Amino acid sequence: MNVTLSEVSPRDGLQPIKQFVPTETKIALVRALHAAGIRRMEVGSFVSPKAIPQMADTGEVLQAAKQLDGLECTVLVPNRRGFDAAIAAGADRLGLFMSLTEGHNQANLNRSRQASFDDLSSIVRDAPPGQKIRFNLSCTFHCPFEGVVDEAEALSWVERVAALNPEMEISLCDTTGNAAPDQVRRLMRQAIEHFGNRFAYHGHDTYGLGLANMAAAWEAGCRVFDAGSGGIGGCPYAPGATGNTAMEDAVWMFHRMGVETGVNWQRLLEAADLAAGIAGAMPGGRVRGVPGARAAA
Amino acid sequence: MNVTLSEVSPRDGLQPIKQFVPTETKIALVRALHAAGIRRMEVGSFVSPKAIPQMADTGEVLQAAKQLDGLECTVLVPNRRGFDAAIAAGADRLGLFMSLTEGHNQANLNRSRQASFDDLSSIVRDAPPGQKIRFNLSCTFHCPFEGVVDEAEALSWVERVAALNPEMEISLCDTTGNAAPDQVRRLMRQAIEHFGNRFAYHGHDTYGLGLANMAAAWEAGCRVFDAGSGGIGGCPYAPGATGNTAMEDAVWMFHRMGVETGVNWQRLLEAADLAAGIAGAMPGGRVRGVPGARAAA
Repeated sequence: MNVTLSEVSPRDGLQPIKQFVPTETKIALVRALHAAGIRRMEVGSFVSPKAIPQMADTGEVLQAAKQLDGLECTVLVPNRRGFDAAIAAGADRLGLFMSLTEGHNQANLNRSRQASFDDLSSIVRDAPPGQKIRFNLSCTFHCPFEGVVDEAEALSWVERVAALNPEMEISLCDTTGNAAPDQVRRLMRQAIEHFGNRFAYHGHDTYGLGLANMAAAWEAGCRVFDAGSGGIGGCPYAPGATGNTAMEDAVWMFHRMGVETGVNWQRLLEAADLAAGIAGAMPGGRVRGVPGARAAA
Repeated sequence: MNVTLSEVSPRDGLQPIKQFVPTETKIALVRALHAAGIRRMEVGSFVSPKAIPQMADTGEVLQAAKQLDGLECTVLVPNRRGFDAAIAAGADRLGLFMSLTEGHNQANLNRSRQASFDDLSSIVRDAPPGQKIRFNLSCTFHCPFEGVVDEAEALSWVERVAALNPEMEISLCDTTGNAAPDQVRRLMRQAIEHFGNRFAYHGHDTYGLGLANMAAAWEAGCRVFDAGSGGIGGCPYAPGATGNTAMEDAVWMFHRMGVETGVNWQRLLEAADLAAGIAGAMPGGRVRGVPGARAAA
């Protein structure tokens, strides 16, 4: 493959749904995505079930996902307790996260960036040798509280994170969907130039810029992308807020660019339809509704 | 302004509507777009009213549009008769068009590319000195009959067109919405490098790639873009076929990129709502439905 696509609907797409999605539905989605050729997936989060009941069954979903051939399973790890649980459960990759902006880190994680960074640093340090880690930097480009992020400020945090571990994957995340293509291209290019080609891009399609930003990150050299089948996600309390850039939109674009994804188009549409049909899910994305795209081989 | 946005909904967006859109509605749309700060517009087509009844009142719409301060009015000119009519009516810019692929030119214009090129060449030659001309090359990237267009083939036609007149603007048109960002970037970059920075990009959003392709053309140096307010257009017989990339989506992206458009955001939304609400129009685009975008200044 020329690109690594990491599917995030089982975690990022389902998490906002209020009613509990049955574990068997989650596992069916994971299996459908794997059957479509997806080989990396964020399957859940080892977070407190009190804080996010929807993720209470991450252990079970992970065990089912680990049965699937060649699937690399990521779980989110918010803290030391989640870290211990993820290691014990045999997660292939740990997904750490903090916000690049103080305002969003405080609102989302209820602590300072420095406190988050210190804790995550110790987790990175204590991870077993060879353990794969993804460090997600939320609001790398735009923050709902602070607006457009200064690029030098963003790069300085990227530098701190990069110094923790030379092997670690780092994701530049457009959490609000309000990044701009030129901004993504510049920052991604500088990040790769200074800290090696180990960056991922995670974007949302809130303002219709999901693919434009993804294409910009690709052009800057990025080769790992998050996307969510069915484009599910968003926030039930913010009409118009959308989920991740739809995996099927991303795959359509990459296939048109001649990039090998390893994904079977028709099977991906089946998985995306499955995701979009989950009770309470808020679907997004574009090509799923375009007859000319649905009919394609 | 750092970019020239050419509004195409009054022509490209209204043309597919079966029932006749009243002339006063067309003029109201043109005025609303001008009030939003749009300063270039494709207002109609001097085509046979038998062939396209919707454009029968282009003369009247053009006269009303010419009253508006600083508005450059383009009319499409399919042939010598349309050329004479456009010159007599005082159109600011003539919009010539042919397809880059033989299959689409035959299907759309019922003649060979060579025959179209020869006729348009004579029109370019006979245009009054200083007359502004836009030469539109349909299906520059992808053809519904021939698939992806070979880039060397595309460039060879661009070269022939460029040689007709060194001042003439040339538009590379993604007629099917199936161009890919890397393809747009490469071709636009080469066109500008070899034939000067006088290219425009015209795209459709059929597969959700409208903004991605526009951003790619911008990055390649293109500074003139077509877009249609309300994203209206498409084909009533092809569900899912969509119109031009929405002007409001384009403006949202350019404003996020810090590019001055001269457009007033809230007034543009008003004009886009007006376009989208025209009886029979098939609206498209994204940000018009996003509360966070609608509320922006």
